Amino acid sequence: MTSVKTPIDILTVSGLQASYRSGALTPEQVIAGIFDRINASGLLGPVWISLADEDEALSRARAWDPDKPLAGIPFAVKDNMDVEGMPTTAGCPSFAYVAKETALTVKKLLDAGAILIGKTNMDQFATGLVGTRSPFGACSSIYDDRYISGGSSSGSAVAVARGLVAFSLGTDTAGSGRVPAAFNGLIGLKPTRGTISSDGVIPACRSLDCVSVFAHTAEDAERVWRVARLDPTEIEAGAPVVGRRTTSLARAWRFGVPHAEELNFFGNAEGPALFRQAVKRLEALGGTQVLIDFAPFKETAALLYEGPWVAERFAAVGEFLASEPPDADPSVTTIILGGQRFSAFDVFRAFERLDALKQQAEQVWREIDVMLLPTTGTIYTKAAVAADPIALNTNLGYYTNFVNLMDLAAVAVPAGLTHQGLPFGVSIIGRPHADAALLELAARYTGERAAGDARQAARDYVPLAVVGAHLSGQPLNRQLVERGARLVYSGRTSSAYQLFELPGQAPLKPGLLRSSTQHGPGIEVEVWEVPHEEFGSFVDGVPPPLAIGNVELSTGTWVKGFVCEPYGVDGARNITEFGGWLQYLAHRDRA
Amino acid sequence: MTSVKTPIDILTVSGLQASYRSGALTPEQVIAGIFDRINASGLLGPVWISLADEDEALSRARAWDPDKPLAGIPFAVKDNMDVEGMPTTAGCPSFAYVAKETALTVKKLLDAGAILIGKTNMDQFATGLVGTRSPFGACSSIYDDRYISGGSSSGSAVAVARGLVAFSLGTDTAGSGRVPAAFNGLIGLKPTRGTISSDGVIPACRSLDCVSVFAHTAEDAERVWRVARLDPTEIEAGAPVVGRRTTSLARAWRFGVPHAEELNFFGNAEGPALFRQAVKRLEALGGTQVLIDFAPFKETAALLYEGPWVAERFAAVGEFLASEPPDADPSVTTIILGGQRFSAFDVFRAFERLDALKQQAEQVWREIDVMLLPTTGTIYTKAAVAADPIALNTNLGYYTNFVNLMDLAAVAVPAGLTHQGLPFGVSIIGRPHADAALLELAARYTGERAAGDARQAARDYVPLAVVGAHLSGQPLNRQLVERGARLVYSGRTSSAYQLFELPGQAPLKPGLLRSSTQHGPGIEVEVWEVPHEEFGSFVDGVPPPLAIGNVELSTGTWVKGFVCEPYGVDGARNITEFGGWLQYLAHRDRA
Repeated sequence: MTSVKTPIDILTVSGLQASYRSGALTPEQVIAGIFDRINASGLLGPVWISLADEDEALSRARAWDPDKPLAGIPFAVKDNMDVEGMPTTAGCPSFAYVAKETALTVKKLLDAGAILIGKTNMDQFATGLVGTRSPFGACSSIYDDRYISGGSSSGSAVAVARGLVAFSLGTDTAGSGRVPAAFNGLIGLKPTRGTISSDGVIPACRSLDCVSVFAHTAEDAERVWRVARLDPTEIEAGAPVVGRRTTSLARAWRFGVPHAEELNFFGNAEGPALFRQAVKRLEALGGTQVLIDFAPFKETAALLYEGPWVAERFAAVGEFLASEPPDADPSVTTIILGGQRFSAFDVFRAFERLDALKQQAEQVWREIDVMLLPTTGTIYTKAAVAADPIALNTNLGYYTNFVNLMDLAAVAVPAGLTHQGLPFGVSIIGRPHADAALLELAARYTGERAAGDARQAARDYVPLAVVGAHLSGQPLNRQLVERGARLVYSGRTSSAYQLFELPGQAPLKPGLLRSSTQHGPGIEVEVWEVPHEEFGSFVDGVPPPLAIGNVELSTGTWVKGFVCEPYGVDGARNITEFGGWLQYLAHRDRA
Repeated sequence: MTSVKTPIDILTVSGLQASYRSGALTPEQVIAGIFDRINASGLLGPVWISLADEDEALSRARAWDPDKPLAGIPFAVKDNMDVEGMPTTAGCPSFAYVAKETALTVKKLLDAGAILIGKTNMDQFATGLVGTRSPFGACSSIYDDRYISGGSSSGSAVAVARGLVAFSLGTDTAGSGRVPAAFNGLIGLKPTRGTISSDGVIPACRSLDCVSVFAHTAEDAERVWRVARLDPTEIEAGAPVVGRRTTSLARAWRFGVPHAEELNFFGNAEGPALFRQAVKRLEALGGTQVLIDFAPFKETAALLYEGPWVAERFAAVGEFLASEPPDADPSVTTIILGGQRFSAFDVFRAFERLDALKQQAEQVWREIDVMLLPTTGTIYTKAAVAADPIALNTNLGYYTNFVNLMDLAAVAVPAGLTHQGLPFGVSIIGRPHADAALLELAARYTGERAAGDARQAARDYVPLAVVGAHLSGQPLNRQLVERGARLVYSGRTSSAYQLFELPGQAPLKPGLLRSSTQHGPGIEVEVWEVPHEEFGSFVDGVPPPLAIGNVELSTGTWVKGFVCEPYGVDGARNITEFGGWLQYLAHRDRA
């Protein structure tokens, strides 16, 4: 068996899958190559806390099954997740135990054919955004060794960035899955809370923790997400309600950006220009910038670090840290033991304040589809962090801390380098369960996917062609408006359609019939996007002889639309010649 | 103007509406009669804390508008809800203030034409299930003056029970909307949290409080609920996720009952027999009893009273009570000031435990559609409560305390009297957003609605007729099964349908067309109930030439079903003679 050098540029999920399928590489070559590189480079330490058994990984590679969605794909997990038979340290050797069971999410990835390479370094107990709070050493940004990798999922980010795995799992409570993505040029997906299982993960701040995904591309992150996420029946207790308006980005869409005075780059001179570029990029993708009131988000971010949630960290590992273990990180210890100072009533007061802030945020969300923010204002050197470990860490959470408290989803995306070659990242933030839309937009942002790709529209909204009483201004149009539907297209059907005035209907209605033999002028239609979750009740209310079928537009596209069963037009007047219902009504009124 | 005596039996929402419509009574007569009775009987005090302005109420009565859903219906609200211009006391005069705005829910009722009679007595700060913790006096059960009315919504329940209003609003955190219903022979609806606005309501335990409804009949409660509830777009932050399985009670359904050793009647010798009668009643309505593990619910109930949620009560009014106001109730003060003893980390630990208990409960809910419990095990005399105010209060919450912590919905229903003439009640408890199904079942339980009434099926499930590849055992059937649909009927269409084998389809599919002229044997169909929230995605996936329209069954019923656009059957083989797709396939295989 020969191992090959696996250059970074093929260690993507999609790249590996293509190479495996074409036979250009075998999974065994790739896995062997990875272990060779890790063993040769002495990377164990800052990046890895423990490695998986190489023989077992190779034997899994040999058992490659092309039908599995992540077959042969190497990955890493943050060392706060259990893998049966391996120690879980959470970045603290004296806390470590050998796990008896594999975390559910890791199991899902293994079942999908992915191959575990090892467990990665992290800010101890996932408390930190820096990546330096670990007795296993501090990871560095892949762009500059003097700079921090970001954390707490430091090793998971660096393992992907260095091409040692194709993707990795982190966790993200305050930004731990996004900040290291920004500092290492990666996609960092922080999914909707509760949609990826946290079973078998050491809690940081249990009610807010999310398992996150690092990958080189949004498409890779999406593939992993589709495997890792829970089935809708399994979604965890406390997951946020599905919003009425999920995000569709196919047509006119708006992205929120804070007013300039609320943007803080913490001394990064190039931050404003890099962020402006990101804004322009979204505009180029068809988005409209909306300046928003960032105050409720900013106050929520402050609540996380200054408020009583730190007591939840104490609930998780406070008693252990109070026993003064020798390898406890001093910053982590200070922070978590500080959680004891809050009373129960501080918690309920903070919840009340948070609910009020969520309501304020709700006003903002009415105006926008997504939010665009820097992932962090700046990046720090390890030396700077060592000198002021807590305050600089807080600065790094300015744009990330509120996201889980507000039950939002986010994708961190690389957004260029400073002239000095330091990374800058932005985050696209959306409402609960907007994950797919965010990944879609991220893929367009990075150029992986064409800007005009409208797959997302079909995902969250159902385009529906209406030709009669549901047209704008007509009596049943409110059934669409009430459901949050919006008009996205006015045009005509293909020439294959005939229109009839249905007898005996109140309000008056036409019926649309497709014909294989007759051709007409095309019938005027409006296409309305109906929110997916409202579509069922809409269809349920459609009376005979009408039905919801599929309608061909003059553009050749098929969309859902009103059709009529043929018995309904027995004896009906054929009004195709008018070219549309409104024209017919106008004629009828004149007549 | 003459006022009439309004006998109790007509002070229901539906009864008044009928009388108003027929002209047998005018709203003005009814409202004047109510004020006369209140003023004459000196009922102000234990029942009422303040009355609405009589002239204003009469002028609203004269402006009766039959198009409004609650036109002319008298109602009361618990005195922890704001009504503009009236004092809000929350049962504590020294806390009182004159409200500047009317609570949103009260406003909705007023906008619907209901007429406010006054604001009712309550356990102070809604802390209690007894109805005796108020400086305005203790209400009594309408069945026996020596016995407590239950609380905390004591006056609201008694006002309805005494026929002074047709319905009333209470609030329910631990059982305050259900216990007084049980003790006064009423329906008490505790809706899904967040679906009726708590804006303008003094919080008791803010994150758990629900506005509740008292009425004489389930149908009345449903009418009020339909007016009071928030539009889906307005549902409050933190409302529970809509469950995948909402409750349908049209067909086989199961109700959970605790094992005998977990039932506690607290010395009520007749409790077990009365509860057995209730079980039999549900069985007679078609339900199947399932004995369940009550442990997670019981432990959750204990969490509410013994755990840190009491600190949330402290967050609401603790500082006020700490100032030692002269009219503070001693029990209420002891309980709420006790909330100071919990730390923030107690709260997060309790949340963690609650989440684990919810997961255990989830297992139970997989086996049942609803739960049937006593509302309370027993009822106490005022003297007994005075002697042991806190322990007996805790006993009253044994079956009610867990409901809001677990985000469930409940309807309390009267369930008979002991030989001594004391009331016994049961609660039907369901998952979040099962409110309509619970009210439906309550209406059947009380006999208001016929047992066989299947309206509910249409509410949460969409019955869908399938005739081809979606039939049981056929290739696309899994699209139904995956969505949690269930087969509820096998039969035939009416004779108006023709069946065709569609050309060029994989898998093979038929097309069903209704004809005005041809008659056939009827086509074999299966009717599947598709969960409402899954119906949209199902319809979205239906390809041309098929559509989802309406299909007439041989029974004359119309249900949603697969139909085919006529162009799809051009040149297709008419297979109507086979009477069904499976028969045709069998014939085809033989051929």
